Amino acid sequence: MIRRGFQAVIRLGHHRVLPGAPHVLPRLNRTSAFGSSTDSLVSRFCLEKTDLKDYALPNASWCPDMLNLYQEFLEKTKTDGWIKLPSFKSNRDHIQGLKLPFGLAATSDKSDWRIFTRCLQVEGQGYEYVIFFHPSKKKSICLFQPGPYLEGAPGFAHGGSLATMMDETFSKTAYLAGEGLFTLSLNIRFKNLIPVGSLAVLNVDVEKIEDQKLYMSCIAQSRDQQRVYAKSSGVFLQLQLEEELSQ
Amino acid sequence: MIRRGFQAVIRLGHHRVLPGAPHVLPRLNRTSAFGSSTDSLVSRFCLEKTDLKDYALPNASWCPDMLNLYQEFLEKTKTDGWIKLPSFKSNRDHIQGLKLPFGLAATSDKSDWRIFTRCLQVEGQGYEYVIFFHPSKKKSICLFQPGPYLEGAPGFAHGGSLATMMDETFSKTAYLAGEGLFTLSLNIRFKNLIPVGSLAVLNVDVEKIEDQKLYMSCIAQSRDQQRVYAKSSGVFLQLQLEEELSQ
Repeated sequence: MIRRGFQAVIRLGHHRVLPGAPHVLPRLNRTSAFGSSTDSLVSRFCLEKTDLKDYALPNASWCPDMLNLYQEFLEKTKTDGWIKLPSFKSNRDHIQGLKLPFGLAATSDKSDWRIFTRCLQVEGQGYEYVIFFHPSKKKSICLFQPGPYLEGAPGFAHGGSLATMMDETFSKTAYLAGEGLFTLSLNIRFKNLIPVGSLAVLNVDVEKIEDQKLYMSCIAQSRDQQRVYAKSSGVFLQLQLEEELSQ
Repeated sequence: MIRRGFQAVIRLGHHRVLPGAPHVLPRLNRTSAFGSSTDSLVSRFCLEKTDLKDYALPNASWCPDMLNLYQEFLEKTKTDGWIKLPSFKSNRDHIQGLKLPFGLAATSDKSDWRIFTRCLQVEGQGYEYVIFFHPSKKKSICLFQPGPYLEGAPGFAHGGSLATMMDETFSKTAYLAGEGLFTLSLNIRFKNLIPVGSLAVLNVDVEKIEDQKLYMSCIAQSRDQQRVYAKSSGVFLQLQLEEELSQ
């Protein structure tokens, strides 16, 4: 259970004092929260050896545009500092060995959880996406192909499915670029509908990190940049995930 | 395919002239677009007899809060002017006999489409929700229970799943209150996380209809109103769905 809203969390972060409950404070370490920690966050996030299935890999449902651009960015991971992020079925897998601050750990022990963007398991039916992250530039590219179960207007992706993809790309970028954990705000201006089965390219930039918040922007457009689907901004709260105590 | 962005559509709507292509104009009928048409829109939307499955009905996964509040609002449909909206597996079912303006009809004939908010078919796994609409007050209530496949932070609903639920409730409200069809903007401030399996109540109001746009607000909170999950605003473009020509 959460005892207070996000804004109260920020205030607590500033004062670093919570009367009567000092152990649930956001223990923000400003040294590790900026720049220098990105490499260690990335190496923790991108496990070299794991049995977990990575859903951000090409499959038969990917359209040619998506496959081609994926290959282009995969080349850039070898020469240009880009990193392909793995995508597991739950954020629980991404934060193994860490715990959320404030006792936010789930109280239920149900075993079948899924991150919303991997909720559909049939290839091509729902979300197909892969995120590439550039640590030193603090930017991300998300290749997103919405399937027929993400429909809004007939034949087009639901506005909420794009909002979710933006929030999720912001989320992973915010965490790796500066331990941003929670969405505080999300503002989207929609320009054109995305046809189901086609590629939308999301360009995300961290604009600034200030006052325990990460400010990000996103533009979603067609591969040739001739059609803008939407523009958005997002603000994330910066909080450190704590190491689990070994038993 | 869409030939132009939403803002261009608005400008066309004002001038009612599109050089060289008069047949794809947004034929906005201001008499039918406001107030008096809401009853006919509602009666068209809420089919009395249909073989289509209504997903907005109680099932074994609903928590007691959700069931109780559903029953309360069901009583209000008899005495207080509220209407329970049906929820089919695709918007294609909701707009049978109508077509989108601008030739936005889907070009693919794939038969298995789903509206994003009904993408998961196992009860309780994804979206459980029901929307009640009040025509004369131009407001809606959405009862929303996120399942374990809508997760973001462990144990809590993904911010994108709430954004989507807000967009969808705005969407149905905008259409019934004033033929609002497309989301132009969506601004959300998140306050607290929603625990998976619990009830969030979304209160949506149409604030004004002006200049071919509907302006709406939403507050999502716990049933006892003691915890605000998020507040949002949305702007929708007002366009008339056209009658299909009979063959």
